[in-house]
Amino acid sequence: MPDTELTTKILKAVDDGLQEQIDYTAELVRLPSLRGQEATAQDFMARSMKERGYTVDRWKINVEDIQNLPGFSPVHISYDDAWNVVGSHRPNNAKGKSLILNGHIDVVPTGPLDMWTRPPFDSYVDGDWLYGRGAGDMKAGLAINLYAVDALRRLGYMPAGDIHFQSVVEEECTGNGALACLQRGYRADTAIITEPSGDRLGSAQVGVMWFQVKVRGRPAHVAYAGSGSNAIEACFPIIEALHGLEAEWNKDRHPMFHDEEHPINFVVSKIEGGDWTSSVPAWCTFDMRISCYPGQDLADVRRAVEETVAGASRKSSFLANNPPQIVYHGFQAEGYVLEGGEEGQDLLKSCHKTVYGEELQKRIFTGTTDARFYGLYANIPAMVYGPKSTEIHGFDERVSIESIRKVTQSVALFIADWCGLEKAA
Amino acid sequence: MPDTELTTKILKAVDDGLQEQIDYTAELVRLPSLRGQEATAQDFMARSMKERGYTVDRWKINVEDIQNLPGFSPVHISYDDAWNVVGSHRPNNAKGKSLILNGHIDVVPTGPLDMWTRPPFDSYVDGDWLYGRGAGDMKAGLAINLYAVDALRRLGYMPAGDIHFQSVVEEECTGNGALACLQRGYRADTAIITEPSGDRLGSAQVGVMWFQVKVRGRPAHVAYAGSGSNAIEACFPIIEALHGLEAEWNKDRHPMFHDEEHPINFVVSKIEGGDWTSSVPAWCTFDMRISCYPGQDLADVRRAVEETVAGASRKSSFLANNPPQIVYHGFQAEGYVLEGGEEGQDLLKSCHKTVYGEELQKRIFTGTTDARFYGLYANIPAMVYGPKSTEIHGFDERVSIESIRKVTQSVALFIADWCGLEKAA
Repeated sequence: MPDTELTTKILKAVDDGLQEQIDYTAELVRLPSLRGQEATAQDFMARSMKERGYTVDRWKINVEDIQNLPGFSPVHISYDDAWNVVGSHRPNNAKGKSLILNGHIDVVPTGPLDMWTRPPFDSYVDGDWLYGRGAGDMKAGLAINLYAVDALRRLGYMPAGDIHFQSVVEEECTGNGALACLQRGYRADTAIITEPSGDRLGSAQVGVMWFQVKVRGRPAHVAYAGSGSNAIEACFPIIEALHGLEAEWNKDRHPMFHDEEHPINFVVSKIEGGDWTSSVPAWCTFDMRISCYPGQDLADVRRAVEETVAGASRKSSFLANNPPQIVYHGFQAEGYVLEGGEEGQDLLKSCHKTVYGEELQKRIFTGTTDARFYGLYANIPAMVYGPKSTEIHGFDERVSIESIRKVTQSVALFIADWCGLEKAA
Repeated sequence: MPDTELTTKILKAVDDGLQEQIDYTAELVRLPSLRGQEATAQDFMARSMKERGYTVDRWKINVEDIQNLPGFSPVHISYDDAWNVVGSHRPNNAKGKSLILNGHIDVVPTGPLDMWTRPPFDSYVDGDWLYGRGAGDMKAGLAINLYAVDALRRLGYMPAGDIHFQSVVEEECTGNGALACLQRGYRADTAIITEPSGDRLGSAQVGVMWFQVKVRGRPAHVAYAGSGSNAIEACFPIIEALHGLEAEWNKDRHPMFHDEEHPINFVVSKIEGGDWTSSVPAWCTFDMRISCYPGQDLADVRRAVEETVAGASRKSSFLANNPPQIVYHGFQAEGYVLEGGEEGQDLLKSCHKTVYGEELQKRIFTGTTDARFYGLYANIPAMVYGPKSTEIHGFDERVSIESIRKVTQSVALFIADWCGLEKAA
């Protein structure tokens, strides 16, 4: 920890930059970086890094480079517009430890616009809240990463260790953006991911899997609906059976998830079926997102899903002979428990306590984050630590400005100690 | 009925033209006249009528012309490509009665191509069956209408009464094509619709209604699925409740439907919902086709649907405050019982018996046909009478060639008597 005088200066330097930081975050939210459309927001990030004097590495993800690495998730979409951006600060004589400050640029779809109070990309401030799709998840975090170092620079210092500012794509569907950073060789002594953890330290996260179930039917004229097999309605008992598996896994818990209300969530999140209102539908496809515990082998998870779908299908004479097809695409993400890296964790706890005046609480995630890649596949302890946000993936997503301020202060203090400081050039 | 000698000649004249008729039908099936793409098949029909010397009336349906007429069904699509074609034979001094020979050119979608033995529009003959989407429903009928008169012409005769050959669009979704024929002034003493009735006479048909139910949800990150309200799964109990109404109506039957196995069919036939696999879906829309009995007021049917949906929705705290929206589009079709026109019915029975050697059976339709427009709104008894077909709206749709032959013979005999004959010019 920096001494008291420097600490006070750093905290104030963050405050001095806060208005600019919030304006910057709002500007970033206004760039609608939905999956497949992140390129302009990534240009913005690259410019921000270049202006600060960081070495900018911008590259398009190449599936062939990463598809055989552990943690890869299969994709059915083109990566022609999937640009990662990393800005690196490399002091001439690195004395301190190195750090990855990671965030993702992609945001999830808005859903029906009429359910938003104001247009989702028209970012605005109301009271303590900054609104907009992606405000919390996680453009506030991308800005925190940059502005924590800016506060040090404002005091005439720069970190005396390597820092890699990563702005990655694909966090919301595969994590292949973070994986591509590993493949490209980025390493550090620890990583901080400023996901909206609600001022807490992510200590464990579930595994997440996406799959599609493609169900066939036997079409017929609706006038003789009994002679057909309705592919849409055939999905209902399959979904019900999968909820049975979800209930089982919620009963039989991983110890770190004992206190969570409902750690495992199986959600049917997309559905599409049928072509014509007067035909018994011949096809229906639903998408499901499921989760599992750290340590559960994904091959076992897939087997459980397949057995469940097959079991439900055997009860239909048509589906017994025309079994649904299961396609895995998107997340094939293992669970992760933050282990090791006690030195970094202790330092973050101490920085947090200085800023908040209270102990850093643990956060157990019932979703996934890119932290798993660093921790599981590169032996880099990855601490998820970010601001308070609400309605992420929902309507009127927002992030707390006071929380942004405090997290930025904690991270700036952390950097000052972890990397050390040197006089800015 | 024509005398025995003429009858024999007419039957043979149909046989003599049969190969050409089947080739013609196959050619017509090859034109993929899906809704919105009927224009080229209608050009083909118009050419066929012109070649035969009929006056061809081809016009685009104008919604404004028909939207206030009874039997109109609301549409959400453009009619920019909705062309009707009517070819009229008008003898100089009409001595006999007049006749409408109606058929529809639109076919329903094919569904997944891999479930067809051969491509759906690659019409082919195998044994007694002519295959292809629309082969039975109802391009065979359109050809029967033309070739029945061709048989008479081959003998040197033409009908001595007006005949209007109608090739209409929109039968599969609204019936607005047939309605537009009425609006344009086409009338006759009776109508025959050569829908695939399986060599039987349509005596009653259900009413049919299409509607969409738009269900909202409260989205959230799937990690906290419990805090959201899943719009897709919210549809399931609503669909179940609608099936309850279906069961009620199947119990409490219209007398003409007593012997049908399951006259009323409520079918969820299309569904779409959700945007993102890791968001609790905020919206889901399903399409349903339902049916009702002749005499049931459609306003009462809509009320029953609305009460059922509202009742199921009240059980969800979210839907109770965010009630699903019901949108009516497509069929708003009343049921119809063939009444009156005994002279025409008796004649058709007698022609049928001559050809088939057995009595004409009644056919009760659990679907709708355009017959309702003529019978309910123009006082024209409309007889649905056509060939045997199977898998209509399904895969490997096909129509029996032997049945086509016999129906064409019956209709030719009917015309010879109903309209009378005069020497062809």
